[in-house]
Amino acid sequence: MFHHSSKLQYEVRVDTPDPVFAKYLQQAIGGVEGEIRVAMQYMFQAMGARGDAKYRDMLMMTATEELSHIEFLGHAVALNLEGAPVSVQEDAARDPVVNAIMGGANPRHILSSGLSAMPVNSNGVPFDMSHVYATGNLAADMMANATAESGGRVLASRLYNMTDDKGMKDMLSFLIARDTMHQEQWLAVIEELGGWSQQLPIPNSTPEDHEATEHSYYFLNTSLDEPTPEGRWTSGPSLDGRSEFSKREKVEPQGQKPDLGTARPGSGTQTEQQ
Amino acid sequence: MFHHSSKLQYEVRVDTPDPVFAKYLQQAIGGVEGEIRVAMQYMFQAMGARGDAKYRDMLMMTATEELSHIEFLGHAVALNLEGAPVSVQEDAARDPVVNAIMGGANPRHILSSGLSAMPVNSNGVPFDMSHVYATGNLAADMMANATAESGGRVLASRLYNMTDDKGMKDMLSFLIARDTMHQEQWLAVIEELGGWSQQLPIPNSTPEDHEATEHSYYFLNTSLDEPTPEGRWTSGPSLDGRSEFSKREKVEPQGQKPDLGTARPGSGTQTEQQ
Amino acid sequence: MFHHSSKLQYEVRVDTPDPVFAKYLQQAIGGVEGEIRVAMQYMFQAMGARGDAKYRDMLMMTATEELSHIEFLGHAVALNLEGAPVSVQEDAARDPVVNAIMGGANPRHILSSGLSAMPVNSNGVPFDMSHVYATGNLAADMMANATAESGGRVLASRLYNMTDDKGMKDMLSFLIARDTMHQEQWLAVIEELGGWSQQLPIPNSTPEDHEATEHSYYFLNTSLDEPTPEGRWTSGPSLDGRSEFSKREKVEPQGQKPDLGTARPGSGTQTEQQ
Amino acid sequence: MFHHSSKLQYEVRVDTPDPVFAKYLQQAIGGVEGEIRVAMQYMFQAMGARGDAKYRDMLMMTATEELSHIEFLGHAVALNLEGAPVSVQEDAARDPVVNAIMGGANPRHILSSGLSAMPVNSNGVPFDMSHVYATGNLAADMMANATAESGGRVLASRLYNMTDDKGMKDMLSFLIARDTMHQEQWLAVIEELGGWSQQLPIPNSTPEDHEATEHSYYFLNTSLDEPTPEGRWTSGPSLDGRSEFSKREKVEPQGQKPDLGTARPGSGTQTEQQ
Amino acid sequence: MFHHSSKLQYEVRVDTPDPVFAKYLQQAIGGVEGEIRVAMQYMFQAMGARGDAKYRDMLMMTATEELSHIEFLGHAVALNLEGAPVSVQEDAARDPVVNAIMGGANPRHILSSGLSAMPVNSNGVPFDMSHVYATGNLAADMMANATAESGGRVLASRLYNMTDDKGMKDMLSFLIARDTMHQEQWLAVIEELGGWSQQLPIPNSTPEDHEATEHSYYFLNTSLDEPTPEGRWTSGPSLDGRSEFSKREKVEPQGQKPDLGTARPGSGTQTEQQ
Amino acid sequence: MFHHSSKLQYEVRVDTPDPVFAKYLQQAIGGVEGEIRVAMQYMFQAMGARGDAKYRDMLMMTATEELSHIEFLGHAVALNLEGAPVSVQEDAARDPVVNAIMGGANPRHILSSGLSAMPVNSNGVPFDMSHVYATGNLAADMMANATAESGGRVLASRLYNMTDDKGMKDMLSFLIARDTMHQEQWLAVIEELGGWSQQLPIPNSTPEDHEATEHSYYFLNTSLDEPTPEGRWTSGPSLDGRSEFSKREKVEPQGQKPDLGTARPGSGTQTEQQ
Repeated sequence: MFHHSSKLQYEVRVDTPDPVFAKYLQQAIGGVEGEIRVAMQYMFQAMGARGDAKYRDMLMMTATEELSHIEFLGHAVALNLEGAPVSVQEDAARDPVVNAIMGGANPRHILSSGLSAMPVNSNGVPFDMSHVYATGNLAADMMANATAESGGRVLASRLYNMTDDKGMKDMLSFLIARDTMHQEQWLAVIEELGGWSQQLPIPNSTPEDHEATEHSYYFLNTSLDEPTPEGRWTSGPSLDGRSEFSKREKVEPQGQKPDLGTARPGSGTQTEQQ
Repeated sequence: MFHHSSKLQYEVRVDTPDPVFAKYLQQAIGGVEGEIRVAMQYMFQAMGARGDAKYRDMLMMTATEELSHIEFLGHAVALNLEGAPVSVQEDAARDPVVNAIMGGANPRHILSSGLSAMPVNSNGVPFDMSHVYATGNLAADMMANATAESGGRVLASRLYNMTDDKGMKDMLSFLIARDTMHQEQWLAVIEELGGWSQQLPIPNSTPEDHEATEHSYYFLNTSLDEPTPEGRWTSGPSLDGRSEFSKREKVEPQGQKPDLGTARPGSGTQTEQQ
Repeated sequence: MFHHSSKLQYEVRVDTPDPVFAKYLQQAIGGVEGEIRVAMQYMFQAMGARGDAKYRDMLMMTATEELSHIEFLGHAVALNLEGAPVSVQEDAARDPVVNAIMGGANPRHILSSGLSAMPVNSNGVPFDMSHVYATGNLAADMMANATAESGGRVLASRLYNMTDDKGMKDMLSFLIARDTMHQEQWLAVIEELGGWSQQLPIPNSTPEDHEATEHSYYFLNTSLDEPTPEGRWTSGPSLDGRSEFSKREKVEPQGQKPDLGTARPGSGTQTEQQ
Repeated sequence: MFHHSSKLQYEVRVDTPDPVFAKYLQQAIGGVEGEIRVAMQYMFQAMGARGDAKYRDMLMMTATEELSHIEFLGHAVALNLEGAPVSVQEDAARDPVVNAIMGGANPRHILSSGLSAMPVNSNGVPFDMSHVYATGNLAADMMANATAESGGRVLASRLYNMTDDKGMKDMLSFLIARDTMHQEQWLAVIEELGGWSQQLPIPNSTPEDHEATEHSYYFLNTSLDEPTPEGRWTSGPSLDGRSEFSKREKVEPQGQKPDLGTARPGSGTQTEQQ
Repeated sequence: MFHHSSKLQYEVRVDTPDPVFAKYLQQAIGGVEGEIRVAMQYMFQAMGARGDAKYRDMLMMTATEELSHIEFLGHAVALNLEGAPVSVQEDAARDPVVNAIMGGANPRHILSSGLSAMPVNSNGVPFDMSHVYATGNLAADMMANATAESGGRVLASRLYNMTDDKGMKDMLSFLIARDTMHQEQWLAVIEELGGWSQQLPIPNSTPEDHEATEHSYYFLNTSLDEPTPEGRWTSGPSLDGRSEFSKREKVEPQGQKPDLGTARPGSGTQTEQQ
Repeated sequence: MFHHSSKLQYEVRVDTPDPVFAKYLQQAIGGVEGEIRVAMQYMFQAMGARGDAKYRDMLMMTATEELSHIEFLGHAVALNLEGAPVSVQEDAARDPVVNAIMGGANPRHILSSGLSAMPVNSNGVPFDMSHVYATGNLAADMMANATAESGGRVLASRLYNMTDDKGMKDMLSFLIARDTMHQEQWLAVIEELGGWSQQLPIPNSTPEDHEATEHSYYFLNTSLDEPTPEGRWTSGPSLDGRSEFSKREKVEPQGQKPDLGTARPGSGTQTEQQ
């Protein structure tokens, strides 16, 4: 069950409201790199967690933290929209500089939300929940989470660079920090479970006779004119310790030429196809 | 530039067509765990790759392989739909067993595609390209790719269990194998670049003074009644080697109570709010 | 069956074409507050109306009116796009002021629609029909309709403030007026049916023994540090006249700690979860 | 800031797991009538609330409650999926009755989520955040909330009828009860603010000279062959007390026939249009 | 401006209600081959039509007809849902045959719409307005319309085969007929304007010096192992009469190897990329 | 199976990087008129092709070419983003002119993709695969393809006009040329199969007794006040040679007034409806 306290997890201060930066910040709320996504992803993973209960607890605790991130980012968006012109009658709206700036703002911050945050990204595209990745497989989910936090910290770092508002930089430095922890905590689960050599390939419970292992360890060069890019993935032991990496070039197709024959009567095709 | 050869990368054989399994297979084509996603993800990452060109080449080569996976899976769907009833006049359609089975099929395989594959998942929801994750950050992208391949191999393993058609099991064992390689090849890039200790936190180029590092290494327990789940993430060196993990419990909010005051005239609010 | 007359329901005049305002107006066509939504919502509600036929008629008549609103708004968008630069060769396009303005326009008005309206909102996001709310429950549908018209009139009022074009203000004053009527006509249905005391809770046909009525009339304060906001909802008779409002603070969870145990073999999880 | 306790808000018990009912329950999680929607809607409204702070508090408190509803519904879905066949090898999967039942289940509950809840509706369509209605106008938002809770209680009542599992009926009776309270608490805000006569038309701050009031109070009969459906909306005082309702039949269009003339060179049209 | 008469354009009769066929019919309402799409497509094309006004009139007239098709199809869906079980208490719901059938029905027809039509396709996916194709180019739009009607008639023909209800077959034979006319009427516009030789390539107003015409008339064989499929498109005069068709095999790429160099500091990439 | 060569199909040169034009170009990648759409559309049509195998080959060859178009357009977007400011510290970002320009850019090109292409349109809306039209009917599919290429060439012509960069104009002139060929090659299939007189109405295999042919050849004037727009579609032989075109004006509805009666108990409606 969830509870709430009235104060924000972290202080939000905006020295100079900036409606264009409000639009940028939306990416951290409703973008695929944003906080709605991680809050919901961790919550759904927790609800489906099977096995050692501590991972379920960990997921739910961090889901709860991410909800608090949505909350303070939402406040940051609203503060950045304070004073944005809501009427052409206002002085601000008559100023060509303001006008040019407003061209880069999200019109729905004025027209739809009344100067507050929306669950959309910086293009105004609403977040959709297909981005909640939760497979029920612990290692796959930890990877998905570390990925989400990587995207999140890349985004927060870019937002940090795109503002010179001290309050916003301070808030973003907190987000950057928490994303550091969250990246590492999910990867630490993998390490605790024996590291990649134990956890790969995911799922590690797939019986080996379900796998055509003769195809499991070569890098396939599909290029007609490029040599294989050599690296850790073309030779040496595979990361799961089960085999050796190798490479294959100029491979011939192994399958047939596909042929579906003619169409059946009654199938809605042209007569010429039947 | 792309080229094509007429044969499939791998042989596709369906011993007993099964329209319900055709629907299931769609998840591997148009699901978030599917082949359209990885083909397009690797292609867009390649097009935006900066730095050592070998990663770009690697991405494009595997993107090309994934296009071939779409192709043979599409053929597998069509073969599973061979003989599905297209008319209530057909004998098959009069059979109550067939009817019950068809209740579990995707009606659009009959109504919309004419007994062939569609770029949708097993619920008939079209794939949307927001799932192409490509940040321009090499490590974040490698993580996203290993995640996608983990989801892919989880799915292929589940599909393998849900059929007893020998041809389909053979095809899926190939997919399981290639997903093994692809998981490991993307993680091998991280290893080649010095491993997590070098690559974390992502992006590793964010200047340390952009980060409130006092918040970077504690696990936050947001629960009111659960002890902190202890593990690799609550003590010991952080994965990036920069610090030590710790934990925080029963933290107080650090921010203010948010307050936006009254609304401005002309902002479309109720008079009582102004 | 539908019919059409060649003239618009209301006159549309644009004194000074403004491509940025054309983008804003799109919200009233293809936004969730817009006319496609209400036209389709009333039409689908009418098609599913059961009970007194006069509500069906009323719904279809207003659906028909809303189709006419789409039509004149579409013309307003096209008129606002007259003269927008379609080529960098044009004088207008060489003007830095025009250029800055065009930065705030929707590029698809030039690239995709050829200077005319599209069924998208002011961010260019296409309307999707999941916003057609039609439950088959008359009172729920009336509420949904009054809500849609409220959002619509809020939007029209904001658009009115964001232009100083006389023609556009005149057209919007008509929309504001019709939204007044439509808000009130749907709420008048509730009043005619005995008002909230008769119609609540929706559906009013749910047998009382399907409801844990001991949980039906208290406001739940989930905050750890805020007193309950007192008001009409914390004391006095409930709006349905069946009970009294009260409040609950610092409630304990009533359920169990969820636990799904271990995962089954064959379920695509990690071995460690099984 | 958010917090969590480890127990569910309400006890969840499933006597007979039913994967088809698991699919149905998804509508209450990820449908437009579901709990993700109201949790997020109230949270975003709270973050944008201006005016008397008690409405903000109220919104955030109920948002927090709705998060707890997602949580216990998610557990209910998982419990209904316990024992669903994950392999054709299992006895259950060989049973034609089970097979027919599984035809009505969501295949992604097996293939994608590993027998747990997803943020999708009962058709497997992911929830999208465009359904978070938050205008910044208090009355419009209260209406949207009462609408959402009406849809929610209609859905919960229908789900109650579609199961005979005692545990599920008990859980749903709790949801039905809380939806009763939530419908009424949002409408009570309207009542506290003076009722519809004060709050209509929404927004009540729109200056009267922005409205073509001669069009504000008649019901428009757009039918060619039906008399006007008479009722509270065709005569008597308008609900806002500003005027009298009336009706108009066989109205003539008031606008012009639209005409955009010819297309400009360079606009990508056919020569014949220029 | 739109008007309505109370009767349906065509009689709808359902002899034996069938909730599974109700689901199938949804494809004709809310599918990409469906009536919402053509109604809205023709309406938006009409609103953006420039050039000879008769095409605008023609578009609006057929848009109006398509609205009437939505209406009678919506009624057909509701009639097919009459008697579907809304409670497990009902006799029908206890019948295993009914249960198996209901497994193939759309649960939202019971849970969400209350036994009536929704603006979704046969997978329950809502129609989205991005499928309204309207370019402002007359010939491109006529093509899009003939395409939509082709898809529509393919669908109606398939639906005809999937039912043996006499009423439904009669209604579908009307739709098949109207789709015949609509396919041909849009193509007749092309013929009236001089046929393909005049109208191609679309847009026919693109100046020839904007086109690398040396690349305009060869079929490109991108296969490594297949001969060029010969036909009308590999030799003989081009359809626009401007040139001759030819073919090219084993073409070499004409461009450079792409290379974006290193990433800039501050761009959120890994240090190794900079 | 697919292969790749390292060079682009066509040379891409950007003389003056322009982040706003980068946003415009996205329409040609991820718009409904764009290259992802045609690549995937032709590929899925090929995978479902039944009848003469040469059409399958033709489709797959052109699908392969379109993949190469995505590739060079993606490079063009990245080159246009070279030098765009990624930090407010940069000189460029301090320049008000640059700032105004950036207001017209896509912020996700900086925040999300790291200065490279994304699979979105010029509004930042991701491409969704519902736009892959593939019916299994050869003629319907050829029409859909010629339509897509028409939209594509209209777009490329408009983009050509919106830039004065020589490199971009050169690249676009190549796209314009290939779209010419592709429009004509799909229409040439229709011609080879006997032209419209043989191929219409689509599907031409629908038995004539499935069609209410008395409704197949009249243009329906649904206007109350406009004469029928006369043309090739109102008289003369129908394009399929089966009949004569005619027109109908002021038609009466042929169907009943719809009536669903009262609602059933247990259906979640209001008591008043039952």
